[in-house]
Amino acid sequence: MNKFGRLFSISIFGESHGESVGVTIDGCPAGLSLTPEDLLPDLERRKGGTQKGTTPRQESDYPIFKSGLFNGKTTGFPVTILFENNNTRSEDYNKQRSIPRPGHADWVAHQKFGGYEDYRGGGHFSARLTTGLVAAGAIARKLLEGISIRAAVTAIGGETDTEKGLQKAIEAKDSVGGIVECRVNGLPAGLGEPYFDSLESALAHLLFAIPAVRGVEFGTGFAAAAMFGIEHNDAIEDMSGKTRTNHAGGVVGGISNGNELVFRLAVKPTSSTPKEQNSLNWDTGKTENFSVKGRHDLCVALRAPVIVEAVTAIVIADFMLLEQKIKRVL
Amino acid sequence: MNKFGRLFSISIFGESHGESVGVTIDGCPAGLSLTPEDLLPDLERRKGGTQKGTTPRQESDYPIFKSGLFNGKTTGFPVTILFENNNTRSEDYNKQRSIPRPGHADWVAHQKFGGYEDYRGGGHFSARLTTGLVAAGAIARKLLEGISIRAAVTAIGGETDTEKGLQKAIEAKDSVGGIVECRVNGLPAGLGEPYFDSLESALAHLLFAIPAVRGVEFGTGFAAAAMFGIEHNDAIEDMSGKTRTNHAGGVVGGISNGNELVFRLAVKPTSSTPKEQNSLNWDTGKTENFSVKGRHDLCVALRAPVIVEAVTAIVIADFMLLEQKIKRVL
Amino acid sequence: MNKFGRLFSISIFGESHGESVGVTIDGCPAGLSLTPEDLLPDLERRKGGTQKGTTPRQESDYPIFKSGLFNGKTTGFPVTILFENNNTRSEDYNKQRSIPRPGHADWVAHQKFGGYEDYRGGGHFSARLTTGLVAAGAIARKLLEGISIRAAVTAIGGETDTEKGLQKAIEAKDSVGGIVECRVNGLPAGLGEPYFDSLESALAHLLFAIPAVRGVEFGTGFAAAAMFGIEHNDAIEDMSGKTRTNHAGGVVGGISNGNELVFRLAVKPTSSTPKEQNSLNWDTGKTENFSVKGRHDLCVALRAPVIVEAVTAIVIADFMLLEQKIKRVL
Amino acid sequence: MNKFGRLFSISIFGESHGESVGVTIDGCPAGLSLTPEDLLPDLERRKGGTQKGTTPRQESDYPIFKSGLFNGKTTGFPVTILFENNNTRSEDYNKQRSIPRPGHADWVAHQKFGGYEDYRGGGHFSARLTTGLVAAGAIARKLLEGISIRAAVTAIGGETDTEKGLQKAIEAKDSVGGIVECRVNGLPAGLGEPYFDSLESALAHLLFAIPAVRGVEFGTGFAAAAMFGIEHNDAIEDMSGKTRTNHAGGVVGGISNGNELVFRLAVKPTSSTPKEQNSLNWDTGKTENFSVKGRHDLCVALRAPVIVEAVTAIVIADFMLLEQKIKRVL
Repeated sequence: MNKFGRLFSISIFGESHGESVGVTIDGCPAGLSLTPEDLLPDLERRKGGTQKGTTPRQESDYPIFKSGLFNGKTTGFPVTILFENNNTRSEDYNKQRSIPRPGHADWVAHQKFGGYEDYRGGGHFSARLTTGLVAAGAIARKLLEGISIRAAVTAIGGETDTEKGLQKAIEAKDSVGGIVECRVNGLPAGLGEPYFDSLESALAHLLFAIPAVRGVEFGTGFAAAAMFGIEHNDAIEDMSGKTRTNHAGGVVGGISNGNELVFRLAVKPTSSTPKEQNSLNWDTGKTENFSVKGRHDLCVALRAPVIVEAVTAIVIADFMLLEQKIKRVL
Repeated sequence: MNKFGRLFSISIFGESHGESVGVTIDGCPAGLSLTPEDLLPDLERRKGGTQKGTTPRQESDYPIFKSGLFNGKTTGFPVTILFENNNTRSEDYNKQRSIPRPGHADWVAHQKFGGYEDYRGGGHFSARLTTGLVAAGAIARKLLEGISIRAAVTAIGGETDTEKGLQKAIEAKDSVGGIVECRVNGLPAGLGEPYFDSLESALAHLLFAIPAVRGVEFGTGFAAAAMFGIEHNDAIEDMSGKTRTNHAGGVVGGISNGNELVFRLAVKPTSSTPKEQNSLNWDTGKTENFSVKGRHDLCVALRAPVIVEAVTAIVIADFMLLEQKIKRVL
Repeated sequence: MNKFGRLFSISIFGESHGESVGVTIDGCPAGLSLTPEDLLPDLERRKGGTQKGTTPRQESDYPIFKSGLFNGKTTGFPVTILFENNNTRSEDYNKQRSIPRPGHADWVAHQKFGGYEDYRGGGHFSARLTTGLVAAGAIARKLLEGISIRAAVTAIGGETDTEKGLQKAIEAKDSVGGIVECRVNGLPAGLGEPYFDSLESALAHLLFAIPAVRGVEFGTGFAAAAMFGIEHNDAIEDMSGKTRTNHAGGVVGGISNGNELVFRLAVKPTSSTPKEQNSLNWDTGKTENFSVKGRHDLCVALRAPVIVEAVTAIVIADFMLLEQKIKRVL
Repeated sequence: MNKFGRLFSISIFGESHGESVGVTIDGCPAGLSLTPEDLLPDLERRKGGTQKGTTPRQESDYPIFKSGLFNGKTTGFPVTILFENNNTRSEDYNKQRSIPRPGHADWVAHQKFGGYEDYRGGGHFSARLTTGLVAAGAIARKLLEGISIRAAVTAIGGETDTEKGLQKAIEAKDSVGGIVECRVNGLPAGLGEPYFDSLESALAHLLFAIPAVRGVEFGTGFAAAAMFGIEHNDAIEDMSGKTRTNHAGGVVGGISNGNELVFRLAVKPTSSTPKEQNSLNWDTGKTENFSVKGRHDLCVALRAPVIVEAVTAIVIADFMLLEQKIKRVL
């Protein structure tokens, strides 16, 4: 299913080189003031072409509201937003069709969908689908007054000096991975449940839905595996629940504890490296050398922060509605 | 909600020191031969008390089938399994009630449930609830003929020699974290979807539902963030989809690619360390020194492998039903 | 799936002649005072054997709470309730096994579940499963302060003098159908949505889940099909939304309008008539005469009102939580 | 939520006088050949203006595919279809804004959505939203080879001679109700489950989602309430499950039995009668006489058959996927 969320529910549709991509938000409270312009800053951040290391493909990415708005406010009914695909160069992809690109979904998509998949530009697998996530996230953020969600790239190619890491990739003419960290402040205590609906479970579910994400950790994360209990435990300091340290990253027993929520993602290097590769040719059944054409990001992690913020906002809005901390009619 | 899964759906209930804990499996195909004995090996692995570094609390953990079986076979209707709680020592917990234990859910549960939560032994937050997960996982495994799911502790306290890591904790009289790695062989290609129902999303959702899990990574995981594309890409070798390397860990574009599925989890040190701690006393509003009583694991990671295998089997069974690779009547 | 509801979610399990039947309520707010005794009056009404025209099978039907309660109050976690099956006489059913009983699920169950179904006493199809519905309904009702839900049999065998209708059936030594009408007062306006989550859709979904229900109508119902618009329209009288007439039965555009909610159900005659019937014998492949043994209701409609009230309460509680008219912690 | 279905899942969006209405089908198998023309016959039947007694509003209702198609075949990803709204006359509605129309959702929508609802032409409540249902239904039908679904108006204004019933309404210058009957042939046995996912539950859920539907009955329906068991029981004639009579209407124990599926709906008279009515004026707080302007159907039942067929096809496709009787890749 291409749907996520219980009360603030989003569904995405579209293909990279098809008619359009889009999103439907079902469950957005009525009475939220909303214009296309509200979404533009985040959409702009997501877009390639303005930043060193991101793809030069330029879509206008202007959100077209098809439903759910009246007199500039949400009506309580589904908000469907379209992004038309204008700037596609499918011929780049057709040429490579005989070689399923390593690291891409080409081979699995073909196995799973029997050849009916739209392979152009990655089809439904394309990062272009994240346009809808970012739009939905921008709407969710408008509901989260007083909650700040900020993600940033904290390492590229193993370098915490991200400029340096990116420069290495440019010089190597290769794509490169990175780390994204997200910090949420102002989150109330009490969001999430033990077990299946833990805050980590819901967040990780959506974070792993972002293409190229290979790892997710909360608070101290993997480093916690090397620690003793007395080091890791966060002593509670006062009745507000504030802790002295924050190894838990703001979530305990699956539930937010009112401290800063902190998590990190590992983003792999884009599979579409300009480097020559050797891999299977479907037509011949033999491996051969080739290189990927088309417009691609050198470091897809650079585009991730706004998407990470978006899905975080979506998850939080859903939990806030569930906990009745956001009203159904504003 | 305490439910997970679309077609092979499980729901858990119960509290550590209440009447019982249990699980309902809804959607298990009809005609699966099933006895309590089928579940005992995995339940035995989950149980504390037989392994150095795990809690001495001993429950018989004998699964009582309350529905869904007839003549030793599943009927296609919900299978409800109970585990009675016999061996509880709630008084241990009552004594500590005035100090919400650092790292535990005591404080957040109280915030969220207004004091109505069953705090004894962690209530619904307790790892005792994983009994139901393990039972459901053992049933799922019976459906997955030809698929091998194996998890193991690969590091304790930062030591890949796990005996050494555990020994450090015993000497330090402190709890300690660890790494669990899971490998799945025989998985068909084609399980999972791009975006929200990616195989990683579904697995991470359930893996983060396991208490004490703080990080999840697939394939090369966090190390991928420091790699170049040409290093990370797995060249496809032949028409079966076999790849030369397996940095992807068997999942590409959210979909299994037929290679070995590999992922790792970070398990934090148990919060219930025997060490003296300093934290808030609810009654006085001031911090004070205390130490946790009760029976606890020094290294909860040691109990995790069977639970990790169980939730992995549950997720795979669900996807196999969705892909019609398991029949609804066997 | 054997689950219903989004926020006040119930799932049922069990078989008529198996170990037990039961229900899990997931999403009941924390802090609701609850004892087995709270459920007994409704369970007593559901039970056969005390009323003319209902089956003499007597189960104690005492609800055993297995989870979700602490100090006599709900904890916010799943409440699982068991009813043990003590008083089963499976041999009655085994004798008839070769003839799938007309009107019963015997034949379809066998087709669908390949012979793995528990056929004894109707298995999972049995009306005994409504015990769980009634228990869940009794809990839901406790959440619905100020809302009165009353159902009654308004006709038996076509007679609005129900005593007379029942007497006809007793004399004919045959089972007989009936009409049940339900009226809900005190319902706030605003429950339900247009289209898929209309109040009628949700109610009809659960009402048609009750065995033997063959029709559901709201307000004027089928009679509306013969009316003109000017007759059927309910003029609004004042700002509270009160209407002069109530042909709509309290629901307009899928949403409650604050007037009395009124709906009716058609309940077919119990298939288990004591009369001789002619139908297929599976073993011989030919039809033959036979009569149904076992303990059965002459008029199952007589047992329906408490079940109808229960499912109505469940649906309303779910909508009230969704509309934030019931708090998650009381 | 504006979503229905588990595996063949549809969601609708849009408002009568907004930008557009539309539907997303998520879960349609890959490889189904599909063109806009495939949908036109059913869309044409749904449209007003060509039939005596239906509204003269004419929209082109040409389906615009925005996603999910490639080379004329479904890809296995969401199919989003838009219908632009071109032919709206919102001023008709603005004039009547001060009087919530009896029988319409005006008053409840205002109560529920706090005045943020798009009231023009009924907004999201409008029957125009059924365009998406009909489109989804036409796609579902393409999956149901060998299954015939036919609905027809069998009575208008109480007359089984429907021409006569309609003539009465035309003469009375009033709207009028009707009965729609649906018959499904070729349905395999085994669709549906006891209790919550009964075939009747799922069908009634969607049938009551159709505007103006006030009653639903299966087989003998309400008439069964007046029958004896021996009359109502359908004797099984042979090993194929064929029954001598079909009072059950093809569904027993919530499961299709392979006989003809038969059900009927009561459709109320359109609330928008041209007759003068007396009802509340919101601005003055007093009742007054008025008459509804705008273009409306005299007998909305006439438009219902194609919608009934559509939702029936949707429900059946969902069950067929669940039962693995339709493949995920064709």
